[in-house]
Amino acid sequence: MGPTTGVVTAFAPASVSNLGPGFDVLGLALEGPGDTVTARVVDGPGVRIARIEGERGALPRQASANTAGIAAAATLGRAGARLGVELELVKGLPIGSGLGSSAASAVAAAFAVNQLLGEPLGPAELLEACLEAEATVSGRHADNVAPALLGGLVAVRSVSPLDVVRLPVPAGLVVVVVTPAFELSTRTARAALPQAVPLAAMVRNSANLAALVAACCTGDLALLGRSIEDEVVTPVRAGLIPGCVEVMAAAREAGALGASISGAGPSIFALCDLEDRAVAAAFAMQAAFERAGLPSKSVISRANCPGARLL
Amino acid sequence: MGPTTGVVTAFAPASVSNLGPGFDVLGLALEGPGDTVTARVVDGPGVRIARIEGERGALPRQASANTAGIAAAATLGRAGARLGVELELVKGLPIGSGLGSSAASAVAAAFAVNQLLGEPLGPAELLEACLEAEATVSGRHADNVAPALLGGLVAVRSVSPLDVVRLPVPAGLVVVVVTPAFELSTRTARAALPQAVPLAAMVRNSANLAALVAACCTGDLALLGRSIEDEVVTPVRAGLIPGCVEVMAAAREAGALGASISGAGPSIFALCDLEDRAVAAAFAMQAAFERAGLPSKSVISRANCPGARLL
Repeated sequence: MGPTTGVVTAFAPASVSNLGPGFDVLGLALEGPGDTVTARVVDGPGVRIARIEGERGALPRQASANTAGIAAAATLGRAGARLGVELELVKGLPIGSGLGSSAASAVAAAFAVNQLLGEPLGPAELLEACLEAEATVSGRHADNVAPALLGGLVAVRSVSPLDVVRLPVPAGLVVVVVTPAFELSTRTARAALPQAVPLAAMVRNSANLAALVAACCTGDLALLGRSIEDEVVTPVRAGLIPGCVEVMAAAREAGALGASISGAGPSIFALCDLEDRAVAAAFAMQAAFERAGLPSKSVISRANCPGARLL
Repeated sequence: MGPTTGVVTAFAPASVSNLGPGFDVLGLALEGPGDTVTARVVDGPGVRIARIEGERGALPRQASANTAGIAAAATLGRAGARLGVELELVKGLPIGSGLGSSAASAVAAAFAVNQLLGEPLGPAELLEACLEAEATVSGRHADNVAPALLGGLVAVRSVSPLDVVRLPVPAGLVVVVVTPAFELSTRTARAALPQAVPLAAMVRNSANLAALVAACCTGDLALLGRSIEDEVVTPVRAGLIPGCVEVMAAAREAGALGASISGAGPSIFALCDLEDRAVAAAFAMQAAFERAGLPSKSVISRANCPGARLL
């Protein structure tokens, strides 16, 4: 297939990664917020970023330093295309928020360029291109790029070679994500991680992860809620986020099934069985951040959302 | 309810725990081998072991030092019964083989005593009684007692409080277990465990475990096979078992989906999608143990087997 048109606009959603015990393994696409990339064919080879809207100039315009640019170039390279491509990136996601901002930019760009070329790459290869981009800014992990591209809930079994498993999502499951006005760089959040984990803590984490995956497969929401427990990564990162422990507790007290840090934070997510309870949880979580001195925004989303798509 | 009869005989099966990445979390009941306990009401309170058949006198006759005796006493205690109980234990399982021998004795005894009393305890309380016994001989882990009692494939989300999840078992899945003539005490196998695990290794283990559980739920046997990978516990224990690496490789070469150490070893299990392939895998695994100088026995079992039952 040849190019379908000289200009294509694609969207990739925000995502919640880790989901408690699934550090660097689980990720879930959200509806609503996301990044948009317009890609157009231009003269000369290579990728150029013409414009970035949002995030007040904090992101690099240099294509090789921006996940959208890197993913676009990787897509061209994997497709063997010698085209010149110009990108416009509209950031709907704040950077350093724990919502998979860098992943959304990469996925939207890779998806747009692949469409521009007439879809030469399948999802697996496209994911590899996005992973290359993610690796340069926040480490080789696919738990944001995979849900942002594929939608729904995914488990990343391996990044080398890439092996991604789509998990069933319980019907009616609703996700709340509250993002405080507080930037936490993924680098800082990663630097706080322990180098090694006591074996007993690993076992308890494994146990919760196994139960969480089983709960998603069987639709056991009570089990899902009590499996959102993590004593390896969450406690360390909670110390970097004002009000974190109180916000997670507020979500549970308001009726959420469970709550934890979204990705590297500072956003906190909660899972709920009913829309009404999600509204109550969002309200309680925002109030708790307020008490810690932080204004915040909340998003309520169903849990089974589509991934990247054309606009 | 009062006692149904003055004498009861119960059976509890062997089990394969860990299943690769699920150390102390996953366990699977086998058909065929197991332990049998006959319990009868006698004068005076407390538990007495009248006879142990098998294992050439290696197991303690003292009730408080034998998992059958401890589990029987815990069952009486939890039921509030002041009865005297005498046990006869027939060991169908070799000790130190990685087949859940101590768990099978505990479960058969607890099950028999509970029947003797007219079933005052439900499965959750019965499991607690068995866990007490297991804790005294090989640590507080429920990944053998839970499948031996409940049957099938289970994930232990928590031991305190006890929270056990039954997982779906893919149709047609067959298990091969090969046990070499080589005793490895659970104490030795536990002493070899690392105290701490590098975070990256924990992530790869988590990823395989999440994929393994998903594969069981969705019936994806290829995914199940490639998820039976563990770099935390298996490599350390493989060094304690002559021929271990070669036996696991032989299983895969013979067409098994995956293979790893059963429990603390030295038994090795393999999962297969067909009975024929299980026979071929068993043959290849036994030949590999033979090359390492060890005669062995093999068992072929379907994966979805019942737990404890009356005889």
